[in-house]
Amino acid sequence: MKILIINPNSDPGMTATIEQAARGYAGDDFSVACLPTPGAPVFIDSYGDEMLAAPGMAELVRSHENQVDGFVVACMDDPNLDAIKEMTARPVVGIAEAAMKVASMIGHRFSIIGTSRAGVANHELLARKYHLQDALASVRYPPDSAATLEDEEQFLLAAQRAVDEDLAEVIVLGCAGLADMARRLAIRLGVPVLDGVVCGVMLAAGMVRAGIATSKAGRYKPR
Amino acid sequence: MKILIINPNSDPGMTATIEQAARGYAGDDFSVACLPTPGAPVFIDSYGDEMLAAPGMAELVRSHENQVDGFVVACMDDPNLDAIKEMTARPVVGIAEAAMKVASMIGHRFSIIGTSRAGVANHELLARKYHLQDALASVRYPPDSAATLEDEEQFLLAAQRAVDEDLAEVIVLGCAGLADMARRLAIRLGVPVLDGVVCGVMLAAGMVRAGIATSKAGRYKPR
Amino acid sequence: MKILIINPNSDPGMTATIEQAARGYAGDDFSVACLPTPGAPVFIDSYGDEMLAAPGMAELVRSHENQVDGFVVACMDDPNLDAIKEMTARPVVGIAEAAMKVASMIGHRFSIIGTSRAGVANHELLARKYHLQDALASVRYPPDSAATLEDEEQFLLAAQRAVDEDLAEVIVLGCAGLADMARRLAIRLGVPVLDGVVCGVMLAAGMVRAGIATSKAGRYKPR
Amino acid sequence: MKILIINPNSDPGMTATIEQAARGYAGDDFSVACLPTPGAPVFIDSYGDEMLAAPGMAELVRSHENQVDGFVVACMDDPNLDAIKEMTARPVVGIAEAAMKVASMIGHRFSIIGTSRAGVANHELLARKYHLQDALASVRYPPDSAATLEDEEQFLLAAQRAVDEDLAEVIVLGCAGLADMARRLAIRLGVPVLDGVVCGVMLAAGMVRAGIATSKAGRYKPR
Amino acid sequence: MKILIINPNSDPGMTATIEQAARGYAGDDFSVACLPTPGAPVFIDSYGDEMLAAPGMAELVRSHENQVDGFVVACMDDPNLDAIKEMTARPVVGIAEAAMKVASMIGHRFSIIGTSRAGVANHELLARKYHLQDALASVRYPPDSAATLEDEEQFLLAAQRAVDEDLAEVIVLGCAGLADMARRLAIRLGVPVLDGVVCGVMLAAGMVRAGIATSKAGRYKPR
Amino acid sequence: MKILIINPNSDPGMTATIEQAARGYAGDDFSVACLPTPGAPVFIDSYGDEMLAAPGMAELVRSHENQVDGFVVACMDDPNLDAIKEMTARPVVGIAEAAMKVASMIGHRFSIIGTSRAGVANHELLARKYHLQDALASVRYPPDSAATLEDEEQFLLAAQRAVDEDLAEVIVLGCAGLADMARRLAIRLGVPVLDGVVCGVMLAAGMVRAGIATSKAGRYKPR
Repeated sequence: MKILIINPNSDPGMTATIEQAARGYAGDDFSVACLPTPGAPVFIDSYGDEMLAAPGMAELVRSHENQVDGFVVACMDDPNLDAIKEMTARPVVGIAEAAMKVASMIGHRFSIIGTSRAGVANHELLARKYHLQDALASVRYPPDSAATLEDEEQFLLAAQRAVDEDLAEVIVLGCAGLADMARRLAIRLGVPVLDGVVCGVMLAAGMVRAGIATSKAGRYKPR
Repeated sequence: MKILIINPNSDPGMTATIEQAARGYAGDDFSVACLPTPGAPVFIDSYGDEMLAAPGMAELVRSHENQVDGFVVACMDDPNLDAIKEMTARPVVGIAEAAMKVASMIGHRFSIIGTSRAGVANHELLARKYHLQDALASVRYPPDSAATLEDEEQFLLAAQRAVDEDLAEVIVLGCAGLADMARRLAIRLGVPVLDGVVCGVMLAAGMVRAGIATSKAGRYKPR
Repeated sequence: MKILIINPNSDPGMTATIEQAARGYAGDDFSVACLPTPGAPVFIDSYGDEMLAAPGMAELVRSHENQVDGFVVACMDDPNLDAIKEMTARPVVGIAEAAMKVASMIGHRFSIIGTSRAGVANHELLARKYHLQDALASVRYPPDSAATLEDEEQFLLAAQRAVDEDLAEVIVLGCAGLADMARRLAIRLGVPVLDGVVCGVMLAAGMVRAGIATSKAGRYKPR
Repeated sequence: MKILIINPNSDPGMTATIEQAARGYAGDDFSVACLPTPGAPVFIDSYGDEMLAAPGMAELVRSHENQVDGFVVACMDDPNLDAIKEMTARPVVGIAEAAMKVASMIGHRFSIIGTSRAGVANHELLARKYHLQDALASVRYPPDSAATLEDEEQFLLAAQRAVDEDLAEVIVLGCAGLADMARRLAIRLGVPVLDGVVCGVMLAAGMVRAGIATSKAGRYKPR
Repeated sequence: MKILIINPNSDPGMTATIEQAARGYAGDDFSVACLPTPGAPVFIDSYGDEMLAAPGMAELVRSHENQVDGFVVACMDDPNLDAIKEMTARPVVGIAEAAMKVASMIGHRFSIIGTSRAGVANHELLARKYHLQDALASVRYPPDSAATLEDEEQFLLAAQRAVDEDLAEVIVLGCAGLADMARRLAIRLGVPVLDGVVCGVMLAAGMVRAGIATSKAGRYKPR
Repeated sequence: MKILIINPNSDPGMTATIEQAARGYAGDDFSVACLPTPGAPVFIDSYGDEMLAAPGMAELVRSHENQVDGFVVACMDDPNLDAIKEMTARPVVGIAEAAMKVASMIGHRFSIIGTSRAGVANHELLARKYHLQDALASVRYPPDSAATLEDEEQFLLAAQRAVDEDLAEVIVLGCAGLADMARRLAIRLGVPVLDGVVCGVMLAAGMVRAGIATSKAGRYKPR
């Protein structure tokens, strides 16, 4: 089995972080690779970025459809996910939908720790799209607006407040680039911390193994 | 005041139909024009079609931003609407959101009359996105699956069933290409029949006149 | 075209404020007038007030039905709105429903800035009635409970907190009597501030122009 | 303890039916009386009817406030209920809210059997107002549109379809004038059939006995 | 009429508190008794506790079915309520469902004052189960985590914050063992304070008197 | 890795069916076993059955906690699931929650094909508990009420109607005992057919591999 992880941005560093997280899950049991999206911005942070990433993402799917068994879209905005589910017969999993669905199974409410205040709305929107608005305790982000993806303490601080003040029982990391801090934060917070990449690979690989894929009966029927 | 209506597909006939409906509303009071989207499919019928229309739609917005006062996206799938709201400071209205919001103000429940069975899911999805799932009586489509946009009797039949069986109090036409049948169907059905183009122009022109536009505080903040 | 705005209270000052806001929108393009409601309280602040306003509001509709093209009910409690939609064949728009529907089209979440703590519940109730409870960031009111409708700084303070703490992307003024501060607050806050009067006139005039009105098929069928 | 039941219409026959149902519940344990509303229509079938009933209903409350312990509003449209809860310190129960709340405690979903097709929307609206839209299996009405309140077989037919086709586990009678058929229908249908009058008296008398009444902290604060 | 109140735990003190509250409501009009559950834990504070209480609760129902007219389950977690509704033809009322339904009739939103932070989630879960998540202002608990059921000031403090900060218009006591403080807290807070035991007995006795009980048509059909 | 599947009933045949389905998924990669529940009924078909299964299920968890890595509860009613999540530190997955969450990722709406009309309500209740009521197209069951778990044509018929009439895009089998017909039905229906056992094992094994388990911060905190 081979799973292709599409990193919707073009950043090599984030691509490496994602692939490492995925390999940590896959071990020797199945093959995973992560590719950056040609022509995409270096960071997906807006609807415009999602739009710019679309052609490259579609091209990655088309060119790999016969070489892999399933796809993961590895950005917590799940950009162009519906279009990709529609275009391929292989199972396709978005890491935001995967992380939220798993989070809803292991705790009463979860919080998403995003990267910025401006991104809160879209995380909320996706939670509603996936029917989980009532299971979303909050969306938090680093208190220091200058924090980068490396400022683990800032993300810890945001997550701690979600646990303490919003009664979040599970933390969902709000960016694929944060994958490597999941385990450390979980230990420090004392609650599960979900990295979407791992959740996405879990579900995509599971679907491949189970022989199930996107229904083509209506919403995702290619036309 | 000048409103540019973006027809997300590239069909000249549908572009003309849309412009005619818009002119019927605007009269001599303000200027409206409808442009087809360069590089887009001739009909938007899938998520893939929406993706293909994106670059051309963005180009239309960019090249007209300084020449018009507001934009309407004239396809009942509201393709790429969030991205366009984000990219321009002018007001932007999708015809699906406009028609559903107006419908919810003039009747208890509305039905959308779409073009095909496969399109039902996306209409439902948009109703949920716009918070109106509880106001949606049903999505219906022509009983004859070979019906074209010209088969007015087929759309009448679907709408009549929505009124009789689903207790729809308002009908929303599910495709911009159906704009010209709104008035005739309304007379035959005895309930309001909304064409999204008219509703979209109504709201876009109203916003321009009122001096309001998309908030740039969060979800639509350009980054 | 002529739009009659019914001010459900009997206060001449508020009637003038409303009419001025409406004229600012209508300009020379169509005619608007605002009338106070005979026999109504000077301020609508409770269900009892709404009840007292009902006979006068109904009388205004009856006596003007043949002289105007559409009606606006200009109180953010939308008093007796369903009854008025039922009694006339002309389009009828409540300013609360209009403002909330427009707000939901230009931002992720909106906050209503009401006049008092006791009024919060009814604003929330109306948001739910109009299916927009999930788009309501908060209802705020002046921190100083002695504030009057003229204390613009107090309303600014409440709105600023809604933007900063509740992530409101749009502000909806919670009383028709606040209409004249919309533009100034918008500039100071940096987000759209909606006055219901303008939104109500926008939609009523738009419906008249589009030839659509309340469905008489069920909920608003006169009996 | 004395409970005053306000029949929002002015029909003596329906007043007698309601009082009889209430007495059947109260027995010798407490006192109930039902009064018709002076100045109200003979049947409440529209928002306009509710408006016409308002002054008389308010007068009944004011003139009896010191003579009774609680009020029931006995019409399945719960007309003017919020205003009456606001105006008196005594507990006030609407029969629609009472019947729906009780129904939701004794079965998975309930259906309301109304009197006409045009009334369906308002029953649905009230179910949503009381948070019970997901517990509402359907609203049904006599298949013969000429049926009167005496045509028990027609109401049985509608209820039977609700049970068979909509999987209703409980039937709620949609008009106070149907009170006397509750027991007979329950036997014939094999499921509980709730008469709102009995449910309303049950809850009003219970509240009186428990010493609880409407909160005056916000929504129902007299102003 | 005789109502048996099942205290799902085995604590004699709490059993006495519950019975006293119930007697305060029943007076001389009908008979109530409360029994502790043989084999149950002394306090129900987890899903495991609910499971341990199940056999004893079922035994109480079976052994009293022919001797009583109705049952109340007197724990704010409503443990095993669906199973008990299913097993007996007598009406069965859970005190959490009863208190929440009554609360939703006398105010816009209610807060539940529970006993601990860890219990918040389950109160929220029950509110959703009973369709009242939108009517739940908050779940609060004593700020001092060492507080016992006797620390009335701690519960007052939590309730006061719910009223002041969460705009709760009604307080629901979150544990049957708090029954005796309802009246005192109501006076100090100035809003209704509901004890579930009283609400449960009110509804169970009302159902018995009205001759209604759990529908056996589907969800509660014994098999 | 070893996953223990708890069959909440005591039927050896169904235990074998479940284990076979699980082995088909696990292959040689990890170990799965299914055990019947000592003392449980032979079929779980009611809340009473769930209650009777509880002690045996708890005993299975306790006695295997140190020997396995995760648990699956293999009944589409997810009996006692919250209690089991609470009692063990290992991940626990219910097959109903797993199947519904996966179904919601591969299609717009899903239908559950249950075993009987009386079971519909509880499937609906679980869909709501898992936040998926809006993604549930319908619950269907064999038209012939005498159908057994072996009557594949009857389940096909029900599923076909769900696809044709309710626009279900995914079918979820409503009983663990139907596991072996998933693949055949999928081929005949042309849409994905999910067996909860496979979905449950997929998620439990995935969680074990990812090192995540139930949050103990609130709802599932052992006390």
